[in-house]
Amino acid sequence: MNLHPDYLLNVVNEPADIKKMSLDELKELAAEMRQLVLERAAAIGGHVGPNLGVMELTIAYHYVFNSPHDKIVWDVSHQSYAHKMLTGRKLGFLDPDHYEDITGYTSPEESAHDFFEVGHTSTSISLAVGLAQARDLTKPHSKNNILAVIGDGSLSGGLAFEGLNNAAKLHSNLIIVVNDNQMAIDKDQGGLYKGLKNLRDTNGKSPNNIFKFMGLDYKYVADGNDLQTMINAFRDVKNIDHPIVLHVNTLKGKGYTPAVEHKMEYHWRAPFDLKTGKDKHPVVNGYNEAVLDELDKQIAAGMPVVAINAAIPGVFGLKRFQEAHPDRYFDVGIAEQDSVTTATAMAVAGARPVVFQNSTFLQRAYDQLIHDMALNDSPVVMIVRGGTIAQGSATHQGTFDISMISNLPNIEYLAPTNVEEMVSMLHWALKQREQPVIIRQPEKELLHGKPTQDDYGVINYDVAHHGSEVAIMAVGDFWELGERVYEQLKKKLNIDATLINPKSITGIDQHDLHHLAENHDVVVTLEDGNLNGGFGETIARYYGPTDMKVINFGAPREFADNVPLDVMNEWYHLTPKQIVDDIEKVLHSL
Amino acid sequence: MNLHPDYLLNVVNEPADIKKMSLDELKELAAEMRQLVLERAAAIGGHVGPNLGVMELTIAYHYVFNSPHDKIVWDVSHQSYAHKMLTGRKLGFLDPDHYEDITGYTSPEESAHDFFEVGHTSTSISLAVGLAQARDLTKPHSKNNILAVIGDGSLSGGLAFEGLNNAAKLHSNLIIVVNDNQMAIDKDQGGLYKGLKNLRDTNGKSPNNIFKFMGLDYKYVADGNDLQTMINAFRDVKNIDHPIVLHVNTLKGKGYTPAVEHKMEYHWRAPFDLKTGKDKHPVVNGYNEAVLDELDKQIAAGMPVVAINAAIPGVFGLKRFQEAHPDRYFDVGIAEQDSVTTATAMAVAGARPVVFQNSTFLQRAYDQLIHDMALNDSPVVMIVRGGTIAQGSATHQGTFDISMISNLPNIEYLAPTNVEEMVSMLHWALKQREQPVIIRQPEKELLHGKPTQDDYGVINYDVAHHGSEVAIMAVGDFWELGERVYEQLKKKLNIDATLINPKSITGIDQHDLHHLAENHDVVVTLEDGNLNGGFGETIARYYGPTDMKVINFGAPREFADNVPLDVMNEWYHLTPKQIVDDIEKVLHSL
Repeated sequence: MNLHPDYLLNVVNEPADIKKMSLDELKELAAEMRQLVLERAAAIGGHVGPNLGVMELTIAYHYVFNSPHDKIVWDVSHQSYAHKMLTGRKLGFLDPDHYEDITGYTSPEESAHDFFEVGHTSTSISLAVGLAQARDLTKPHSKNNILAVIGDGSLSGGLAFEGLNNAAKLHSNLIIVVNDNQMAIDKDQGGLYKGLKNLRDTNGKSPNNIFKFMGLDYKYVADGNDLQTMINAFRDVKNIDHPIVLHVNTLKGKGYTPAVEHKMEYHWRAPFDLKTGKDKHPVVNGYNEAVLDELDKQIAAGMPVVAINAAIPGVFGLKRFQEAHPDRYFDVGIAEQDSVTTATAMAVAGARPVVFQNSTFLQRAYDQLIHDMALNDSPVVMIVRGGTIAQGSATHQGTFDISMISNLPNIEYLAPTNVEEMVSMLHWALKQREQPVIIRQPEKELLHGKPTQDDYGVINYDVAHHGSEVAIMAVGDFWELGERVYEQLKKKLNIDATLINPKSITGIDQHDLHHLAENHDVVVTLEDGNLNGGFGETIARYYGPTDMKVINFGAPREFADNVPLDVMNEWYHLTPKQIVDDIEKVLHSL
Repeated sequence: MNLHPDYLLNVVNEPADIKKMSLDELKELAAEMRQLVLERAAAIGGHVGPNLGVMELTIAYHYVFNSPHDKIVWDVSHQSYAHKMLTGRKLGFLDPDHYEDITGYTSPEESAHDFFEVGHTSTSISLAVGLAQARDLTKPHSKNNILAVIGDGSLSGGLAFEGLNNAAKLHSNLIIVVNDNQMAIDKDQGGLYKGLKNLRDTNGKSPNNIFKFMGLDYKYVADGNDLQTMINAFRDVKNIDHPIVLHVNTLKGKGYTPAVEHKMEYHWRAPFDLKTGKDKHPVVNGYNEAVLDELDKQIAAGMPVVAINAAIPGVFGLKRFQEAHPDRYFDVGIAEQDSVTTATAMAVAGARPVVFQNSTFLQRAYDQLIHDMALNDSPVVMIVRGGTIAQGSATHQGTFDISMISNLPNIEYLAPTNVEEMVSMLHWALKQREQPVIIRQPEKELLHGKPTQDDYGVINYDVAHHGSEVAIMAVGDFWELGERVYEQLKKKLNIDATLINPKSITGIDQHDLHHLAENHDVVVTLEDGNLNGGFGETIARYYGPTDMKVINFGAPREFADNVPLDVMNEWYHLTPKQIVDDIEKVLHSL
């Protein structure tokens, strides 16, 4: 049900509808849309501060320009809520029954006003340059404007700089809106932010200007939250015949005091109570806490541990570490490449860096994993979260980590099945100085267990149950699934299967694999990630020349966009019943 | 035999030995070392211009600082020849018998004066920041200097910018030497170079200074090829207590006129004649030529084709394209991320971008492949070279491409076996608008053949010979190896094998695979790349639950540094004899 049938927004079906409105009406619209951002985020979670900050910018854009003839590329696109409300998707904010109809990011499938699916940062300038170059080649006489909106921390990502460098070569229309909300996700994160502050402090007049340095035209807008100012600013640059940077000063969280006062906390919020500001379902992540406990212990014992992350301290609860060890805490900003390369050097030089990464963002540091960390065999320790089949935006799909990491030389990629095992692995990873070690943090509920080895340099599989006929290898997070398959095999087929925790995704235990052949016909692998390039394929290759049958379970080579987990599990044959049925078929064929 | 027993360099066994020399002697040393760079590169190939340009910088460094207590990180490290000569490795330049003893890049295995194996660009600032942070944490009272030498095009790589951003947060010694030789590998490549030119033109005095913008201290050195100037410059910044950028103007190719006049050609040279400057073994790459012919044809027919590369036009012979179609040629500089993301947008907007990539450098755009190109299903066409098991530096090992690309959704990764097939695939890739298509260009000799399909949207394996018992699937470049295995199987085991060209590394032909089971016991996969995450494992997974035996041949999960190809082939069981022996063993076990 539409919670606000009285809102002005109800008459807005397309951007043209706001062009007839008065300034006062547009301001009212901005206030309404701020309320809607809050209500929706409070109900289902979402990006709060970034959206509150760009209301005027967004309204002014659609007021001045003609979307989709003119094209805007939202960087990260987590600040595109107002854009969505004004481009035919208002019901996704007005009506809780339709909250889930729209995604949190731009989506060409949703609207002709969106041009790319985007969820990672720092891509907008390169994308906009590409649109402009294609326009100039294929439709040289069309006069459409191309805009990129970048900021909110994403300007520090190297790709943004590469984009600026090439934008400067363009001889046609391109408007790069730098949405400067003074934040790098967290507070000030490096030299870039010093320079931007200097520009703000001088009302854009400082002669030291990174954009002009690169040959780009430049204008400064001191109050990007004043609607008339933004309208004028956009009018000034509309149809410009060369690239220009419009540096717009905005306030992250504008219009909602808690979001202004706690910018980091309100960057993205899980569902929360709008009155109290408290999380509806507060979570203590036991794995996070256990990791930080171990780091505290090693620091107390004199180990030169440091914690490195790229603008995601919240994911790992790192504020606790930062407060306890401020000189050992490094948030490099949105700069995953730098986080891995810097850690490489720190570890080579004797420190014990622990790098905290989201699987999906770590993709940005693939070459640094290979060419810096692995090639130099640098004993970096890394914790990776988000490598799991989960409901969410395809932009942040985390299931590529096994293929990305486990096929590289020199790296040990460990997959603990419970918290004690994870701590044991971390403890070993920190003590050894032989090689990079990456630990895949479980994402399902906290499990307890007992580590079965303490030196993970050579992996001995943990055979939790010795059985026969069928051996189940359940990797990390899929341990519980393995236990359920074990039980169903017993119940349905009266098979006493062997159940194995392989612990490592890279180091296979050839001894165990060899001896399984003595009294097993089928090996089943279960991994919480993509099958292609995954753990199961390594096992399939091992047994390829032998009589052993191998069945691999995991996710196929595809993107899944906001698909409920239970639906995915059915699709992918990942329910215990489906798995047992599949095993039964193979057993029948023997 | 030492070709120059009379050289002053002969008395230099460690950097301390040059500290006693007079300025005149040091200048003589520089002249000698220039000659040695030329002689060695002419004989076995190597980086010419970059090394000629930094002689004075390198001598001054070792004259002023105390290596390895003070530490220098060479970006890319292809300009470290002089550094090697002065740190105990002179024989690798004086004596042709020892040319091959040293690599073309820094190597901790070679010398305590090298700290990292490096061959990719833009990493040095992050590495140096890491060394500095580790120093400050573990040895806060040691006063050693940490230097990064970056330039020669590598400052445009996004990681360099991420590094600068974080360098500005340091409160201790760090000296970033920007070796500004006015080049971006090729000539001017974007805004960054405009800004650097402005700094040079104003003798470093322009108030618009990207380094100062980021809060970094800054000094300019107008003549980085004057030894006394460089000595003074280094003395000025030695033991500085905060990060500083030393912007040094040098001449790429200094001291050798052809290298100065043809900077791009002399960046790296294959063996050449020092007198005539001509290549000793001129190569015409038939695959390159065929690709460019097809692009010319499509452009003539009106297709909006553009060619994009990231500072490697020489690898693909793209100067020809640039001359014919200057407005359709985009060299983005060293900025692989940008190259893929820009191409994504161009293809979405209707242009037909063809991106030319080296396998090893494409690693830097892994997230752009996933999150930009594949997620948006953008019909980018890409040609990848260097995905081959080859002798060379481990820094540039190209064998990760199959694992990197073929496991991602939406992308079709094609592996032609001959030039006509490659053109046919390219032709289809350009005509279709459904999905990204990447073509793995063969690296072995030019083969001719006949394409067996013209729409590669659904792959039909080409069964070149229908046999029984054993089926050989030979991917791309390994086609000839497949033919030889076929022949040896017939000769040695009297087996009439089936020989298959799978054409695609991603799209498997389930129909063919299914029917192979009717009269085959063993499937053999041959791929010129890493086994882990490779094509063979996909086939092993497919047949995992069946009676079919699968044997995968390829390279193991390891780095191979300058290992001769025939040695690697033996190690990896990739000779026809070894392959047939391995097949025989499996057949005997049936």
